[in-house]
Amino acid sequence: MNYFSSNFKLGILGGGQLGKMLLAETRKFDIQTYVLDPSNDAPCKIACNVFVQGSLMDFDTVYNFGKQVDVLTFEIELVNVAALEKLESEGKKVYPSPKTLKNIQNKGIQKDFYVQNNIPTTNFKHYPTTKKLIIDIIDNNIKMPFVWKCTEFGYDGNGVKIVKSISDVENLPNIECIAEEMVPFKNELAVIMVRNVSGDIKSYPVVEMEFHPEANQVEYVLCPARIDDTVALKAIEIALKVSETFNHVGLLAVEMFQTQNDEILVNEVAPRPHNSGHHTIEASYTSQFENHLRAILDLPLGNTNSKAAGIMVNLVGEAGFSGQVVYENIEKIMAIDGVTPHIYGKRETRPFRKMGHVTIVNENMMEARKIAEEVKNSIRVISGQSQ
Amino acid sequence: MNYFSSNFKLGILGGGQLGKMLLAETRKFDIQTYVLDPSNDAPCKIACNVFVQGSLMDFDTVYNFGKQVDVLTFEIELVNVAALEKLESEGKKVYPSPKTLKNIQNKGIQKDFYVQNNIPTTNFKHYPTTKKLIIDIIDNNIKMPFVWKCTEFGYDGNGVKIVKSISDVENLPNIECIAEEMVPFKNELAVIMVRNVSGDIKSYPVVEMEFHPEANQVEYVLCPARIDDTVALKAIEIALKVSETFNHVGLLAVEMFQTQNDEILVNEVAPRPHNSGHHTIEASYTSQFENHLRAILDLPLGNTNSKAAGIMVNLVGEAGFSGQVVYENIEKIMAIDGVTPHIYGKRETRPFRKMGHVTIVNENMMEARKIAEEVKNSIRVISGQSQ
Repeated sequence: MNYFSSNFKLGILGGGQLGKMLLAETRKFDIQTYVLDPSNDAPCKIACNVFVQGSLMDFDTVYNFGKQVDVLTFEIELVNVAALEKLESEGKKVYPSPKTLKNIQNKGIQKDFYVQNNIPTTNFKHYPTTKKLIIDIIDNNIKMPFVWKCTEFGYDGNGVKIVKSISDVENLPNIECIAEEMVPFKNELAVIMVRNVSGDIKSYPVVEMEFHPEANQVEYVLCPARIDDTVALKAIEIALKVSETFNHVGLLAVEMFQTQNDEILVNEVAPRPHNSGHHTIEASYTSQFENHLRAILDLPLGNTNSKAAGIMVNLVGEAGFSGQVVYENIEKIMAIDGVTPHIYGKRETRPFRKMGHVTIVNENMMEARKIAEEVKNSIRVISGQSQ
Repeated sequence: MNYFSSNFKLGILGGGQLGKMLLAETRKFDIQTYVLDPSNDAPCKIACNVFVQGSLMDFDTVYNFGKQVDVLTFEIELVNVAALEKLESEGKKVYPSPKTLKNIQNKGIQKDFYVQNNIPTTNFKHYPTTKKLIIDIIDNNIKMPFVWKCTEFGYDGNGVKIVKSISDVENLPNIECIAEEMVPFKNELAVIMVRNVSGDIKSYPVVEMEFHPEANQVEYVLCPARIDDTVALKAIEIALKVSETFNHVGLLAVEMFQTQNDEILVNEVAPRPHNSGHHTIEASYTSQFENHLRAILDLPLGNTNSKAAGIMVNLVGEAGFSGQVVYENIEKIMAIDGVTPHIYGKRETRPFRKMGHVTIVNENMMEARKIAEEVKNSIRVISGQSQ
């Protein structure tokens, strides 16, 4: 198959920042792209060949979009899976497959999948409604604190709640959910796996995540994780098992907990480019975005090793600011060696909205970590005027 | 000045591969771009915000294009300088300045500039026409062999000819030219300099170039050059002097000869992203394209050090093939660790046309050089059907 400067067409469902960074790679290889997104202001609107405005959840829109392209992928899980299934049944190449997506989209099914396949995960209970969970609490069948998660449409802090007392659940939406045991952990880790159509698999080094205590969004991602080699090896082995079990095509970001006893428990996965892999653009021989592309086009996978230590800092909208974005002190952080801002192209900031990220690359992890903190303390995503 | 996700507009004259790689950086920072190019198929057409089709040599076209933007730059020297001068005189920011461009555009003026400023360069004579040069040959005033170069519009093997006997010049166009002494050299070297509006200057490491014997196009660029530290230091010092003397804003690629006696002689310069700096995308902390952008926007310059050794292999159209391009064996080279192809997006190949390049990055230069040769011997830029 000739993908390069040819008539081949890649379709991407979703036109957000992940798609935008994927388009940097399709441009590098001169691969034609079609992008579908509901917003006419989507970050992907520039740099794709054809932009289609439309709903990712509407069967006809997704189906008709898919018919126009040779290979279809997505940068967001919230897409119409039935349309993908129909396209696949008609012979269209859809990567990752709708089957993989179905196993992942619903967190309850995803957790059940781990149990069925002997993949270590935190203990959990799966409920059809939050009301049923409340009954279990009243009946003393569940130990507090635990983590409430809605099984669908939840990501990045929406749809996740730490429950310490019954009052914490009373105002939650009455939807399908899981109650997950709270594991006191040393670290939150992640491994990005990539698997191409032929079944070749590679893993990126283990990364370590530090979360913002309030917003429940990743604040720093450190690569490599500052953990023992034996723990890193265990994490890679488990991520490899997860990858083989899902039998996915493309990227699979495997998020894990390292417990106090150095056990590794799988938290959740995402079958797409992931926030925990953004540092790979600067720090790795092959970025996660390039490797996703290689995987879904069944090209050989690129080297996943690092050229240097990398840290990623998320740029989220400062609380109290909404409107036309200003990246305060961006010049100041750009004066530091090895610091690269990525601006996602959203004109309007809102509190905690993901607006960009900054990568810090350095030969030395200690030095990189110091710079990351300086970056974090300097740059602010605000608007021209505070509210 | 707020460049990021703002109303600020950067204009780029020229929409070829250098512009395309520059747009990867403007997309990363979400800086709005306007591109002017005569071809409606220009590689830059995608990924800029506004594409204008028009002549780069036409005064009105360039002037009217420039009026629409806040800062104007170029990716090719062959532009209407009078229009740039008028724009600058009206207060428009044009980087590099028309003055820098004038000192460089004409190779005779460029060489005179080196002599005036005590910058070591090869001996040369400047002729208004090739006929005057022929008279000098007949009068025995010039030693053969020498290099004939037309002073304007010559680049990449066009407009350059090694003259061994009078019959070599007889068929050359009768235009303004220089005759340059042929220096037996050990190496062709280059240093990319970057200088921002505030006058901060940084240099990239010295690279070594290997030319294709027939096409006179660069075949390999190696970073760092395999030369003694003292020679490298001398090359950097001279490049720094060149940069300070030109007082340019943006990139300045300084091509040099290392003679048999380890003298450094300046060959020529280019005030824009350069073929000898393409490896910086993967090998350096900051690519030449990002640093050009930082320079012309007066942002702090990025770290020019390397993360690893880098080699660039040009992908030029194979002799004997014209038409719809096919990158034969591209999958084979992508299977090698640290190999990244860049495809410029030209649908049609022609003999020796620059179609792309491949970067090889490795911790070890010896290993990188071995891989580069494997790459060179594997990939072929051909068309669907041979002529």
